[in-house]
Amino acid sequence: MPYYKNHVFVCTNQRTDGRASCQDCGAQELRDHMKKRSKELGLLGKGEVRINSAGCLNRCDEGPVMVVYPQGTWYTFMDKEDIDEIVDEHLIKGNEVERLKLEND
Amino acid sequence: MPYYKNHVFVCTNQRTDGRASCQDCGAQELRDHMKKRSKELGLLGKGEVRINSAGCLNRCDEGPVMVVYPQGTWYTFMDKEDIDEIVDEHLIKGNEVERLKLEND
Repeated sequence: MPYYKNHVFVCTNQRTDGRASCQDCGAQELRDHMKKRSKELGLLGKGEVRINSAGCLNRCDEGPVMVVYPQGTWYTFMDKEDIDEIVDEHLIKGNEVERLKLEND
Repeated sequence: MPYYKNHVFVCTNQRTDGRASCQDCGAQELRDHMKKRSKELGLLGKGEVRINSAGCLNRCDEGPVMVVYPQGTWYTFMDKEDIDEIVDEHLIKGNEVERLKLEND
């Protein structure tokens, strides 16, 4: 049994050297929305879901990005609607959101 | 193929309300040591290892803590010797370090 069924890490890194970074797209606000919505839906807790902020995940060119473990599913997202779809489909129903998924190769 | 063979998230959260948090034990410095040592050993990169900082992983009472995905192995650690053992055994050889491992139940 994993400690969290879905452990989400949202990159909220802000670079200051001019290169692209996830926080350019408001990743912190979108992560906060994801956590708030997951909490409202009663998804959070041990054995269930955890929504974390993380440092740079090094997929900046594809950002903003998040990864859901232990599945190892990577997503990009642009707005709250994308976040809500990941919550509703992946976290609640266990279905990957193909249109937002990043390839690993 | 996972994007990272070993994706490590070290909690570097600092609470300011008096409750225990991983940064009380110098988690950020130990994470930086882990990243530096992994880099020196040539472990980092796509398909290999990534060492991230993360927000509160909510296992504060057992902290400082880290989790290695996609395996979902949780560790506690106290000093650089513990970090080096996790690098040498888990990241290089693929063997879990039983003496530092946290139970998930």
